[in-house]
Formats: sequence, C-alpha cells, structure tokens
Amino acid sequence: MNTRSAPSDRTRIRRLAELASYEQASLHAVIDAAHLCHIAFDDGKGTHCIPTACWRQDDYLYIHGSNGGRLTRLLTSGVQACITITHLDGLVLARSAFNHAMNYRSAMIYGCFERVTDEADKHQALALFMEKLAPGRQTQVRPGSIKEMAATTVMRIALDEAAVKIRTGGPVDDAEDMDIPAWAGVLPLVLTPATPVADEYCRVEAPDYVRNWAR
Amino acid sequence: MNTRSAPSDRTRIRRLAELASYEQASLHAVIDAAHLCHIAFDDGKGTHCIPTACWRQDDYLYIHGSNGGRLTRLLTSGVQACITITHLDGLVLARSAFNHAMNYRSAMIYGCFERVTDEADKHQALALFMEKLAPGRQTQVRPGSIKEMAATTVMRIALDEAAVKIRTGGPVDDAEDMDIPAWAGVLPLVLTPATPVADEYCRVEAPDYVRNWAR
Repeated sequence: MNTRSAPSDRTRIRRLAELASYEQASLHAVIDAAHLCHIAFDDGKGTHCIPTACWRQDDYLYIHGSNGGRLTRLLTSGVQACITITHLDGLVLARSAFNHAMNYRSAMIYGCFERVTDEADKHQALALFMEKLAPGRQTQVRPGSIKEMAATTVMRIALDEAAVKIRTGGPVDDAEDMDIPAWAGVLPLVLTPATPVADEYCRVEAPDYVRNWAR
Repeated sequence: MNTRSAPSDRTRIRRLAELASYEQASLHAVIDAAHLCHIAFDDGKGTHCIPTACWRQDDYLYIHGSNGGRLTRLLTSGVQACITITHLDGLVLARSAFNHAMNYRSAMIYGCFERVTDEADKHQALALFMEKLAPGRQTQVRPGSIKEMAATTVMRIALDEAAVKIRTGGPVDDAEDMDIPAWAGVLPLVLTPATPVADEYCRVEAPDYVRNWAR
C-alpha cells in the first residue's frame, strides 16, 4: 500500500506500519463511508474529543456547527485539530489471546479548519452534505432561511496531512499455535441500514432513498 | 434524564443540554455497547486522536497497548485524556434542511489513565476483555505467555468525570413546516454482526459465540 510516503512526521504510522496508506483514494474512501468523525483539539484548558457529522468535497473534509458553539468558535480560531474516522469491520479471533485483533478502516487528518465564508460556497457545501445523506432530497425540503444560514458555520480542513490505516483479513497466528483447538477467524460487523421509520404525521410517499435504504 | 448533574464544568453539556445524562447506568450502557473508543491527548507538540479497543470493569474504562507504543507511553505518563465513544443510530430527515439531525449515543470521559501494575488485576482485566469479545473463549485459546504479558500494558481510567448525550426519535420540525411535502422520519443504522469467516486452516467446530454471531 505504501507507494506514497507520509506527508509529515506526525502522520507517519509507526505501529503496524504495514497497514498504513497515504494514498488519496484510500483516504477518500474512508471519509466517504463515514457519517461522523471525532475531532480532538485543545481549548487552552485541556484536550477535548467531539463527535460531529462530516462530509467531503474534493480534497477537503467539511463539518458544520452552530455559530455560538464552543466547537465552532475554537476551530475557526485557528486551533490545531486532529480528526479521526474509524469504521469497525470485525473482531479477529486468533488461536492465542495475544494475537486477537480487530479489522477496521481509519483515517487521521491533522491541520486547522477554515471558515467557509463565501455564501455560494457555503450553500454548495451544505447541499453536498444533504446529497450524501439522501440523494435528491435537497429539492424536496425547505431550504435554509437567511436566519438559519446565518446561524450555521461551515468549516473545512484540507486533506493535505492525513494517514489511513486499514486492517483486513483473518488472524495471524504464530506457527506453533496452529494446532490449538480454538475456532479462528473473523466475526464481521457492518453498519447496516434498518427499516425506515416514518414520522407519524408524514403523508408523503417514500422517495427512492427511503425505499432503497434497507434494501 | 437529568436527575444527576454534571460532575464538572467540562462535562456539563451546553449544546442541546436536554439530551445530556450524567447517570451511571447510561454511561455503562454506551461503553458496554462499544468495541472501540477515540482517545484525545496532547503530546506536548500537538493534539492527537487515536482509536483503540476498550472495555469496562466496574467504574473504570480499560484499554491496552504495546509497551513501546506512543499511546501507552503518553497515557501512562499522566497526560490528560478525553475519551469519546459514539454509536451512530440513524439519520433524522426533517422537512427543512436546517432541522436534519442524527440519532446517536455518545459518551465523553475526562481524566488520566493509570497503569494496571498488579499482575493478577492485569490478567483479570484482559480476561474480561476476551469475555466481552467472545464469551467463554478465554479457556479455548492459548493464554498470554510471560513475554507477551510483559509486552502488554493495561491501563484504566475512572469514570468519575463523564457525560452522556443521546438523541433518539424522529425529526423535530418547525410547526410552519409540517405541510411541506417531504418524507420525514428516521433512516436507522445498526452495527450488525455478519456471517463469521473461519480461518482457512480452522478445523474446529464453531462455538456458540460464533454460531450465534449473525443469528
């Protein structure tokens, strides 16, 4: 996977370095599969880790927040952030306790957020967010009012300094453990769409993104 | 939900405070449903956010790591940590773009990790971790050797300073938006066990925790 090298010292993966990737396509895939990320930052009094919704446009990760919120205030003040996305794909059961592992896809992004100030860019970014949640929905809902838009901050961070770490496949046991009579393999986990629950006042026929949600 | 108040200023939830809980039972439920957490900390050069496996014993959250790893080294040096666990439960589609939301269960824990130094406590903690992953498996696998145990650090953090935030249910629309002809409701997401994948050399019959995995 390592045809590209780490973009910086702090993104160079040391632990299980063979699982690392610095390819743009891997990074995009991990982000695009995610609805939320965890953002770590320091507010001058301590370190915090906040989950929030995210989406991608080109080589930027986007988030949004309420103007008055601490997250918005701090992240737009130029504080250094570390954003991590993790998909858990399964429990890896090995023949020894020590070799147990998890399968996952994770991404870490370092840098500083910038506020999206241009109104057209901001509208476009939020439209893209909606498109990710429910394709085509943008034209069905009431768009943000001037007041709602003014209360919302959209922020983005460049994907310049990022690393991906992915583990797939079965257990890697020590050769001398192969005859131990323990079941060995993977117990997969998948974030799965379940049957949509319509609002009790909803009288509208379900659109494609609802009907196809749980397949 | 707020019969107990926030244990500290930094755990007092300001944003959508009506979704906050400071009850032990809520916190335990969010942790026990999780296989991994995100840990934010500062290494003196910047802020990091690392995903890692976790489990709970009484009123402590446990993690483990390689002795040589940066995470282990820093967290056992007394650095302040913020641990966040987030379960995404669904996308909440409202009649206006602005009122879209997500359903989730999240927990944040502040404090410092301590190394579990007592050998019996360390063995017990790791056994409990295995029991969470696969009940009964502990007696089937090769236990950790002296060398493997020596290479593994088990750490724990007290659940004294924590907060839980949970959103459930359908969209909350503005009264004047109720006639907008957009489908409204929840698109649920569930982390679901899928069919186990046995290791190609596995000749052992699947135990209960494998046969019952994907139901």
